Amino acid sequence: MGKVILNVSMSLDGYIAGPNHSVSKGMGEGGERLHHWMFNNTHPIDAAVLKEIFDTSGAFLMGRRWFDHGENVWGPSPFNMPVFVVTHRKKASVVTGNTSFHFITDGLESAVRQAKAAAGDKNVTTGGADLPRQLLKAGLVDEISISLIPVILGNGIPLFDATIRKQIGLERIGLVESPEVTHIRFRVIKNGQ
Amino acid sequence: MGKVILNVSMSLDGYIAGPNHSVSKGMGEGGERLHHWMFNNTHPIDAAVLKEIFDTSGAFLMGRRWFDHGENVWGPSPFNMPVFVVTHRKKASVVTGNTSFHFITDGLESAVRQAKAAAGDKNVTTGGADLPRQLLKAGLVDEISISLIPVILGNGIPLFDATIRKQIGLERIGLVESPEVTHIRFRVIKNGQ
Repeated sequence: MGKVILNVSMSLDGYIAGPNHSVSKGMGEGGERLHHWMFNNTHPIDAAVLKEIFDTSGAFLMGRRWFDHGENVWGPSPFNMPVFVVTHRKKASVVTGNTSFHFITDGLESAVRQAKAAAGDKNVTTGGADLPRQLLKAGLVDEISISLIPVILGNGIPLFDATIRKQIGLERIGLVESPEVTHIRFRVIKNGQ
Repeated sequence: MGKVILNVSMSLDGYIAGPNHSVSKGMGEGGERLHHWMFNNTHPIDAAVLKEIFDTSGAFLMGRRWFDHGENVWGPSPFNMPVFVVTHRKKASVVTGNTSFHFITDGLESAVRQAKAAAGDKNVTTGGADLPRQLLKAGLVDEISISLIPVILGNGIPLFDATIRKQIGLERIGLVESPEVTHIRFRVIKNGQ
């Protein structure tokens, strides 16, 4: 059974998108800075990090807002794997290119269970901010992989916030440095293990 | 002339101390987790990082709150260099052990100027949160050295906050990993340089 891995690009001040995030400004003002490494002259080290994420992921978990922001922009979806969208609003599954989107309305644990079943031996990857925080609080994240971007955004959508309200121990299990990005991987310590 | 370097231990969620920070709970609830690496069975790699900070620092800059919290706790001060305390309240200089504390009431730039003069060829080191944020906003920080601690605190005193309100570019110029801590050093990019 695979792991649930939070994979996200984050500024040094903890933002995963800039302020005034909207459909037309997908990453918020200045937030596209966080994803340069994936889209602009990607360095081979960064390309290898990205490839490994996709090669080892068998399903993706996202929140409804991400789906809503993305669906008009994506065209053929880049995921190429089943995507489970955690939402309160029912919706029939959507297939675009090699990606199927399934809308899960009966809670986080059900979404994780279904994503794990779809992923088989591979991992379930998640991203965003609201959903990862909920998963973290529920003890449903096994690893956190941060691509730390050398910028202070000063404002935007934080990955972590005061709703977490408890100390979560981590163990660094991987570190890859490209010329620009510091990719750091942590295992979440559960029940002292 | 030396540089002004912000040197701080930070949790993955951006806190430099836990919640309910007070004189009796110097690092806030759970916040002492951030400084294990300095005080509890310090690994030789971490010890070398600490030694380099002290060897290359000729003066220290701190906010008044840090001084007030520390002065009853320190006994012989651990700084062994001139410390410049930025404050609105005048106070005569204090000498304890090999450390002198000077209280600067005429602003940030004056404090930086006096600290640089005292440091000579060495660097001016600063820490805390309020003062570093003010220095960053004023363009007075040359380098940021984060000792990233593998923990999510969930609450506490953030290093960065929304008062920064502008994007600050960084360049990673150093990375040292001990078994526990990821020490990452950034140069602050000023005016596109």
